[in-house]
Amino acid sequence: MESPNTAAARQDLYPSRTGAEARLLERQDPIVRGTVSDGPLEQAALDHFEQHGYLLFQGLFNAEEVASLQAEMKRIWAARQEDSGDEVIREPESAELRSVFRIHETSEVFARVCRDPRLLGAAMQILGSPVYVHHSRINYKPGYAGREFYWHSDFETWHVEDGIPRPRALSISVALTENTEHNGPLMVIPGSHRHYVSCPGETPADNFKSSLRKQEYGVPDPASLDALMKRSTAPLTSAKGPPGTVLMFDANIMHGSNGNITPDPRTVLYFVYNSVHNTPEAPFGNRPPRPTFLRNLDFTPLRSVQG
Amino acid sequence: MESPNTAAARQDLYPSRTGAEARLLERQDPIVRGTVSDGPLEQAALDHFEQHGYLLFQGLFNAEEVASLQAEMKRIWAARQEDSGDEVIREPESAELRSVFRIHETSEVFARVCRDPRLLGAAMQILGSPVYVHHSRINYKPGYAGREFYWHSDFETWHVEDGIPRPRALSISVALTENTEHNGPLMVIPGSHRHYVSCPGETPADNFKSSLRKQEYGVPDPASLDALMKRSTAPLTSAKGPPGTVLMFDANIMHGSNGNITPDPRTVLYFVYNSVHNTPEAPFGNRPPRPTFLRNLDFTPLRSVQG
Repeated sequence: MESPNTAAARQDLYPSRTGAEARLLERQDPIVRGTVSDGPLEQAALDHFEQHGYLLFQGLFNAEEVASLQAEMKRIWAARQEDSGDEVIREPESAELRSVFRIHETSEVFARVCRDPRLLGAAMQILGSPVYVHHSRINYKPGYAGREFYWHSDFETWHVEDGIPRPRALSISVALTENTEHNGPLMVIPGSHRHYVSCPGETPADNFKSSLRKQEYGVPDPASLDALMKRSTAPLTSAKGPPGTVLMFDANIMHGSNGNITPDPRTVLYFVYNSVHNTPEAPFGNRPPRPTFLRNLDFTPLRSVQG
Repeated sequence: MESPNTAAARQDLYPSRTGAEARLLERQDPIVRGTVSDGPLEQAALDHFEQHGYLLFQGLFNAEEVASLQAEMKRIWAARQEDSGDEVIREPESAELRSVFRIHETSEVFARVCRDPRLLGAAMQILGSPVYVHHSRINYKPGYAGREFYWHSDFETWHVEDGIPRPRALSISVALTENTEHNGPLMVIPGSHRHYVSCPGETPADNFKSSLRKQEYGVPDPASLDALMKRSTAPLTSAKGPPGTVLMFDANIMHGSNGNITPDPRTVLYFVYNSVHNTPEAPFGNRPPRPTFLRNLDFTPLRSVQG
């Protein structure tokens, strides 16, 4: 359901791309809302997420589980090669597949993964409520040709372009190939989730058609990034690990990845969990909302299934 | 002196960019020519270079030496900002300085470094003869904007474009900033110096004007890279280390680097040492030779000085 509010009538705690100069704002919302009795994460893990904005579990899925996910990934890779729909994103230069969206609805295997208690339970525990999937995707970063993805806060985009009111959301990634220091793993600035970069610029029409390949709006300025680095709670960290490694990260943590000239592809599943108390309103930017493969409007709470 | 030979009259042991299909050739030349009594490298180091094609010395230059090199680097960075000459290479998109060439002739400090016995002595020891500098440069990989440099063999370019007959040359890099796993350090494929990738394509006119920023010719094909990876003597290795770290690598080793979205710049000095018995002839490709800031024609052997 769309909120009847319009951007003009609302107070915006997280303004961005308003044409004003870039600035760093304090986060106005809690980070971890649940307690240790609410889900699978122990107190140390909850504390780590609170302080640093992410959790890395190397090899959370075992070899057998990984093999099943990889088989499904390969099936989708082959099946979507000729797909020209919006849900399929390609490399700007080579036209190779880069992302396939909506995998939690179009794949039975991935529908189950996103309801796995290790993921869904942790998401509900951190966000302190039932959750649904705002969007999901496979990212393929091919060998020899994987491009960088510059620093960004997901929440900045979801707020400005999708109308997600608050950073009461998180992403969970599941690596299907090994993430090494050489093949462009996702990097986070630890602690950066505690600040919000109000980005310069405004949003052009249909920005999502290019921003999923290369983001040019909602890009933090170097001075704000320098400030986040200075206030970071730990050195730059990347999501290295064997296939089956899981990264959980706050909607507002600053993250990005270098390119990948190595032969080793980097394939990762992403599920974005949003609290059912944080469903999208009208976008806070000046454009119509993005399509539903990016901004899911089915807010039915997910229920756990055993993987 | 230019050789009177023409490409047509010569046998070419290392053909590339001839219009033929890519293929992998065996190296026809020795790797390490000197012995342990000829210079500063011990037997284990010589064996490592022979087997893997490189040597990494973390922190070879001490803090005081590094401070002096950094000061000179900053002086040159400032002094060459407005320089529009060929010796100064800029980022394709931002016009930021990327490389300054001929630093062993234009800077007294760097002229001394390239004659430091730790570098020059090792170069002469490996190449088994007196050496001169084929070219030299500072590479600046700025924070937030450093671009990748794809896999390549330096010798392939020096042979095709400069007329260097044999892989009897090597590069020595000196890091002036910390090289981390995150800021795009140079990666090598260990053992790849034992094979030569005959690259597809031909060379366009004035290729050097763009190839120093982004190489599009003399680029190895994925199948050859896969073959080099399969035959590699060790996993992919990168030149990580504190400022003052030194990497010595064979002219023919396959190397490259990912981009750098981190705030941390990566600045490195490069000196290319060539044997005086391996001076350039007419290029083996179909184009006139590159200018002398890339293809030095002063073959006067270097003499060691204490740093």
